Amino acid sequence: MTLNEQLKHKIDFKTKPLGALGLLEDLALQIGLIQNTLTPELKNPALLVFAADHGLADEGVSAYPKEVTWQMVMNFVSGGAAINVFCRQNGFNLKVIDAGVDFDFPADAPITNAKIARGSRNMRREPAMTVSECLSAIGKGREQVKQEAARGCNIIGFGEMGIGNTSASSLLMHRFLNIPIESCTGAGTGSRGEQLVRKIQILKEISEKYNPQTPEETLATFGGLEIAMMVGAMLEACDQQMILLIDGFIATAAVLTAIQMNPEVRGNCVFCHSSDEQGHQLMLRHMDARPMLHLNLRVGEGTGAALAFPLVQAAVNFLNQMSSFETAGVANKE
Amino acid sequence: MTLNEQLKHKIDFKTKPLGALGLLEDLALQIGLIQNTLTPELKNPALLVFAADHGLADEGVSAYPKEVTWQMVMNFVSGGAAINVFCRQNGFNLKVIDAGVDFDFPADAPITNAKIARGSRNMRREPAMTVSECLSAIGKGREQVKQEAARGCNIIGFGEMGIGNTSASSLLMHRFLNIPIESCTGAGTGSRGEQLVRKIQILKEISEKYNPQTPEETLATFGGLEIAMMVGAMLEACDQQMILLIDGFIATAAVLTAIQMNPEVRGNCVFCHSSDEQGHQLMLRHMDARPMLHLNLRVGEGTGAALAFPLVQAAVNFLNQMSSFETAGVANKE
Repeated sequence: MTLNEQLKHKIDFKTKPLGALGLLEDLALQIGLIQNTLTPELKNPALLVFAADHGLADEGVSAYPKEVTWQMVMNFVSGGAAINVFCRQNGFNLKVIDAGVDFDFPADAPITNAKIARGSRNMRREPAMTVSECLSAIGKGREQVKQEAARGCNIIGFGEMGIGNTSASSLLMHRFLNIPIESCTGAGTGSRGEQLVRKIQILKEISEKYNPQTPEETLATFGGLEIAMMVGAMLEACDQQMILLIDGFIATAAVLTAIQMNPEVRGNCVFCHSSDEQGHQLMLRHMDARPMLHLNLRVGEGTGAALAFPLVQAAVNFLNQMSSFETAGVANKE
Repeated sequence: MTLNEQLKHKIDFKTKPLGALGLLEDLALQIGLIQNTLTPELKNPALLVFAADHGLADEGVSAYPKEVTWQMVMNFVSGGAAINVFCRQNGFNLKVIDAGVDFDFPADAPITNAKIARGSRNMRREPAMTVSECLSAIGKGREQVKQEAARGCNIIGFGEMGIGNTSASSLLMHRFLNIPIESCTGAGTGSRGEQLVRKIQILKEISEKYNPQTPEETLATFGGLEIAMMVGAMLEACDQQMILLIDGFIATAAVLTAIQMNPEVRGNCVFCHSSDEQGHQLMLRHMDARPMLHLNLRVGEGTGAALAFPLVQAAVNFLNQMSSFETAGVANKE
């Protein structure tokens, strides 16, 4: 029997109706295959939050002022943000990474300095990054994950903070999936009515302005520093045979980008949450993803990833700990 | 300000976009109101699994033989069932209660003996229980919850094991909601095709045979011993101001019954999982319930309740631990 068949047999003969643990069964199979074992384990979960500013924020595409990026990073540092609460609860090592925030953080703040620039450029005028900056961000993202692997981490979530980053994500989705910009663009953290119409108009204008060819050029043109660094982290996590916990709209756009560069990334992804953001569900459908949670979250930060972790643990636990019909003395279906 | 307003203010001023924690915000508000405080706590979670046999199982309404009821109870006792795994993971005190299994369990097995009879009667011939048996089951269910309250438990899940109990649940739903039996009847643990047609035919025949008036009479006629005991447990949990974690189809039919007896029960319910069982979604909609999880589970046993617990904890934790815009130095929406 192949490992796939062995895992299916193990799952099917647990003391429950066939298929009755639903998505947890799919997850147990996937994790067994990622770890190449019948007895997977989750070790030292980590959550990396990448933060950066976006030049495009100057165009008023977000409901919040740009300063919120650094203010929220300081909030992560003081432990008061949603992601702090959920990481503490579920045993995640939380690491906050400055990929390109337009602020000088205090030297003693527990922030990993991976700053490439003080924010990406305003895409309305020039590409968000040069290809060289983008590759540098990808490399630094890989580096972060190597450090977590050295700590024994085999399951990793990705979060982000960056006022303006739903716009970048909408553009990446639009270009990679060839879906009209209107269907890729939603409210973000709170754009409504006229502001949303204006956001769509600006994104259309930007999309028409450039014609990048490779995934790397596309990411450089339309992405952001935190998104590029997250893409690098995802590529490395796949190389390290880790389970990737994919959060909401922005992390999903990042993993869509990573998959263009290495299609094997898809097999390691656990999609954690389906948000209300227009476009997120379309992207998930394109990747044939069935997310674990539907809680109407729209916080970002990696919150969906941290919240879904106990369900991933439950999938591993039932596979390892439940008795089978063979051993428990329970009659199987007639 | 009322407590409701104070809770809403506390939630709205957390450092996140307004409403961005979605269902967790509704849950935090609900739990604050149940516990009558701005700083709720979850204490000593318990999961009660009620088991009983059903005379109706003789008619072949289930895909599994009746012996599976006691065999699965022994599986609970040896720690190998899905509910054991998830209770261990999430810190639940699991209690297995024999409400009416047609089996003599070993005296030293850690099973609470609350046996009313060796199974309910075959409804095709006579009511499942006498009203006196039903009231006795309700009383014993209340007793179980009083014991948990004495242990300091303030959040309680309800599970069940009973071959044939989806039929009883379908009948209760049909009678309380006045919905055609076809829409209340699904596959249970695995009835398909002809077997399902036959199940519906039998349930129709049974429904037409009786005309009970009060909720207690209806429960006695169409319910089961484990369902009646669960109804009593739910009524008591509400009286004790506990949070009620409602699992799948059978637990939802039980709480629907409990609500007929005391409408205040509804306010204390957290609906944990929306199953694929036809009828479950209809019942949930009728009670205006938006369940936390959608994992295609159909195990029963209280698995959905145990699995949803970390999300309930997350709701309480964000309410207690997140910083506010007022204190964190983060700019609110422009």
